[in-house]
Amino acid sequence: MRISELSSLSGVPVATIKYYLREGLLPSGRALSRTQAEYDEAHLERLRLIRALTGAGGLGLARVRRVLEVIDDPAVDRLSVLATAQRAVPPVVVAAEPEPGESRGASSRLRAWSAARGWSLDPDDPLLDQLDAAWSACDDAGIGLDEGRMDAYADAAERIAQIDVATVPASPTPAVRQVVLGTVLMDPVLALLRRLAQQHLSAERAAGRSGGPSPRP
Amino acid sequence: MRISELSSLSGVPVATIKYYLREGLLPSGRALSRTQAEYDEAHLERLRLIRALTGAGGLGLARVRRVLEVIDDPAVDRLSVLATAQRAVPPVVVAAEPEPGESRGASSRLRAWSAARGWSLDPDDPLLDQLDAAWSACDDAGIGLDEGRMDAYADAAERIAQIDVATVPASPTPAVRQVVLGTVLMDPVLALLRRLAQQHLSAERAAGRSGGPSPRP
Repeated sequence: MRISELSSLSGVPVATIKYYLREGLLPSGRALSRTQAEYDEAHLERLRLIRALTGAGGLGLARVRRVLEVIDDPAVDRLSVLATAQRAVPPVVVAAEPEPGESRGASSRLRAWSAARGWSLDPDDPLLDQLDAAWSACDDAGIGLDEGRMDAYADAAERIAQIDVATVPASPTPAVRQVVLGTVLMDPVLALLRRLAQQHLSAERAAGRSGGPSPRP
Repeated sequence: MRISELSSLSGVPVATIKYYLREGLLPSGRALSRTQAEYDEAHLERLRLIRALTGAGGLGLARVRRVLEVIDDPAVDRLSVLATAQRAVPPVVVAAEPEPGESRGASSRLRAWSAARGWSLDPDDPLLDQLDAAWSACDDAGIGLDEGRMDAYADAAERIAQIDVATVPASPTPAVRQVVLGTVLMDPVLALLRRLAQQHLSAERAAGRSGGPSPRP
């Protein structure tokens, strides 16, 4: 197909497609003449992916480039799939650098909590610094997030992660793709489901019903 | 206390505090002289809250201002707590405006799914447009998010919302505060718990254990 058809099928303007081509985010088409090129399904798929990542995923182009590089890399070690994927996605929280003399790593509260939970984690994982910062922010804002409530949220997070992990393909390259895209694109879905579930439960409560889980069809 | 002590207790630089004072995000202190003012615990608390919202919460100052206005508003109707709070927080996904002639509102897939689930929702809720966009982005990226998987994620979201709703105070003004801050500041905590739970479950799987939920202490 020509670039105009690629544009109408993907909903991405021709000027934007040309920009992605110049930036190397989208591979060149097969040259038909000095000014025309032919594109195929793979181009359309890649363009839809870029649009999903910049749109609902909220990523900037530099981060999209990094995500695409990781997804396209055939040399991923089976064991490092998760680490590779988690490094490719943007940090959730930009945690402050430790002060000079202050050690990096989780606070004693977070270490004690995750140990009591029995979670197998790398103590140097930057995600722990981010969780420390996010937990402290809840304290600073005066919303009570004690260990018990953290455990209740972690129970729900484990259910989500079970679905995530169960749907990861066995071979490394598609697995990295699934984990990276599942992280970037499912975070907004989950945040929205949380808000809608709050509305549903509040409406149930206001109507004098239990506010418990809705019956499954 | 003087502004220097406010700065050292909050960790916010004096220049930044002065900027918040000029912008009206932080109320003025009690004037001691033409150049000096006295601040109290309420200033310190507000400053910690602003830092939490701009830091882990990831909000810009315009959005912080809106959140503070909503939190400070004493005239909140008991029934509209959730709607008020959800309007104050930034959208999760910036959904595209509908094309001319295209109707606003959830797609038929999303409407059928939420109806089958029995969720009590306002059909004109902009959150539904956002969820539509986020779901389409998953399709565009080729990560399989069918109705069954959406239901499994929604089950987990309901557990989270149950904790959220159960910890909301009964009177409207603190309730709005709790819901707004709990949304802005708990989204990153939940996203991080999801990633850490993925790591824990992957490590358990690699070690040949079940990968099921960890035993509770």
